[in-house]
Amino acid sequence: MSRILTGIQSSGRPHLGNILGAILPAVNLSQQVGNESFLFIADLHSLTTLRDGNTRREFVRAIAATWLAFGYDTVKNTLWRQSRVPEHTELAWYLNCFTPMAMLENATSYKDKLEKMPSAANAGLFTYPVLQTADILLYDAELVPVGKDQRQHLEMARDIAGAVNRYYNDEVFVMPEARIDSKIMTIPGIDGAKMSKSYNNYIDMFLPANELYKVVKKILSDSTPLEEPKNPDTDITFQLYALLASDEQIATMRQKYESGGYGYGHAKKELYELIVERFATERERFAELMVEGNPELENELRAGEEKARAVASATISRVRRVMGFN
Amino acid sequence: MSRILTGIQSSGRPHLGNILGAILPAVNLSQQVGNESFLFIADLHSLTTLRDGNTRREFVRAIAATWLAFGYDTVKNTLWRQSRVPEHTELAWYLNCFTPMAMLENATSYKDKLEKMPSAANAGLFTYPVLQTADILLYDAELVPVGKDQRQHLEMARDIAGAVNRYYNDEVFVMPEARIDSKIMTIPGIDGAKMSKSYNNYIDMFLPANELYKVVKKILSDSTPLEEPKNPDTDITFQLYALLASDEQIATMRQKYESGGYGYGHAKKELYELIVERFATERERFAELMVEGNPELENELRAGEEKARAVASATISRVRRVMGFN
Repeated sequence: MSRILTGIQSSGRPHLGNILGAILPAVNLSQQVGNESFLFIADLHSLTTLRDGNTRREFVRAIAATWLAFGYDTVKNTLWRQSRVPEHTELAWYLNCFTPMAMLENATSYKDKLEKMPSAANAGLFTYPVLQTADILLYDAELVPVGKDQRQHLEMARDIAGAVNRYYNDEVFVMPEARIDSKIMTIPGIDGAKMSKSYNNYIDMFLPANELYKVVKKILSDSTPLEEPKNPDTDITFQLYALLASDEQIATMRQKYESGGYGYGHAKKELYELIVERFATERERFAELMVEGNPELENELRAGEEKARAVASATISRVRRVMGFN
Repeated sequence: MSRILTGIQSSGRPHLGNILGAILPAVNLSQQVGNESFLFIADLHSLTTLRDGNTRREFVRAIAATWLAFGYDTVKNTLWRQSRVPEHTELAWYLNCFTPMAMLENATSYKDKLEKMPSAANAGLFTYPVLQTADILLYDAELVPVGKDQRQHLEMARDIAGAVNRYYNDEVFVMPEARIDSKIMTIPGIDGAKMSKSYNNYIDMFLPANELYKVVKKILSDSTPLEEPKNPDTDITFQLYALLASDEQIATMRQKYESGGYGYGHAKKELYELIVERFATERERFAELMVEGNPELENELRAGEEKARAVASATISRVRRVMGFN
């Protein structure tokens, strides 16, 4: 049985790239027998770069609704808002006192951010890896799926956990392992670059159908005339279609591309229809969960917070005992 | 009505210098009509330099017992352990995100500590002023008595509070004022330097009587022979005696010094007897509170924690609302 911990930065409503590249694989992983997933919305982390309260509230709801709509099973697993479990910040303080300044000063992601925007350098951004360490250690996480950019942070988490365990000569913390996903899918955005909020090239698949169609129609294509054959393998619309369609559907569309007399507009229409059809249930469920006044979302999160606190408070008790705060 | 906030670093059992220089004046201030004192044991801060759990537990108990023994009135005021009110570390995280790195990098007390012991530089020590700011703002403190070395930290607290209030265009935090005590007494230690734990020249007035007498006998004195007149104004024993005795007692001892035939040993015996007599009640009460298994101390602290949390949680609600964590 492996306990897998995942934190999601609340930087906006998840788009098709997030869903195909991260959410669906994580939901699958969480459903595997022997796995138990702890999934939290990292709203405390979001304060390092986002100050507006309404935006944060909206983002948090959208993220929770997306995971639930895509079948994250909260009976088997645990989903919560980081800010509702005060043990995160409490443990972060304890760990601060075991974190050498040099470790944080050498963090690549901090140095990158500092270089891009020196004025944004605040103590939250600087101690971000310590809060992240607290997130991981609080739940005795064994596996932490991380992208390349987060590998250093996981090394820090292991170093800090080791420093505490060594000082108190006790197994205070479980040593987490990184789970580097080598076959992470990169989903192309409408301009062909990696789909990303920051490139503004994403497909928001929770848009109303007509607006969604408008976005799909904006996908970049070359100027091959309608009647001529086209190369599916260099076309973004085809690539996106291939990520969602069945083998049979893909073969059919490939043939249409190669035969000529089939335009990019046709392909985009088919892609749009496939998105709407394949994710009809998820789109409906998302809309339902997001209705103002529907208590379901809040109830799910509160139930998750209770489950998370039960684990977190056991860890904090252990920490308080060895450090003399009990 | 002024709300006064004081944090006590749990760096050991208070000595005579702490009691005369800080505790008794603070107890007096807290008793003044119109004042309300919030006094916490800063055990979270202590982790920046002290890791051992048993030592911390012992220090925390001794500090609480000292204040209670010296008449700190917990019906009127509030006494608690910082680590038992999780809102301290929660608020510290929020404030981290409003604290420019440059502000912390320029903190004199951090730079001093770094210079003295570079290996000790940890993220707790670095973000210490942010936790201190949280301590202050959490209780809507109006007055914060500070020594000279803490003035810069109070300026930081005001800057951080101002940054949050300005960003959210709201009176989220009460702006604290420093109360610089110009007539702070410096109590001489047994070697004549300022009495301090770190100089190891202190009088622990909770020692058993015979051990206390031994320490008093170690007070430095010159080599004037017993029969000769002595200058009371340059003698440490006389100075300490004068801090505790009545005007009449002081005048009597001054005369003895100046008449000759009165040795330093005699003066030390009188000083010892005065300490034991004047603080008989406090010494007895302290010993009583420190008895293992006496629940009084723990009960006092728990009651204080409940009072403190009522105020802290109201502030945190305000913060969560504007920042979008509610």
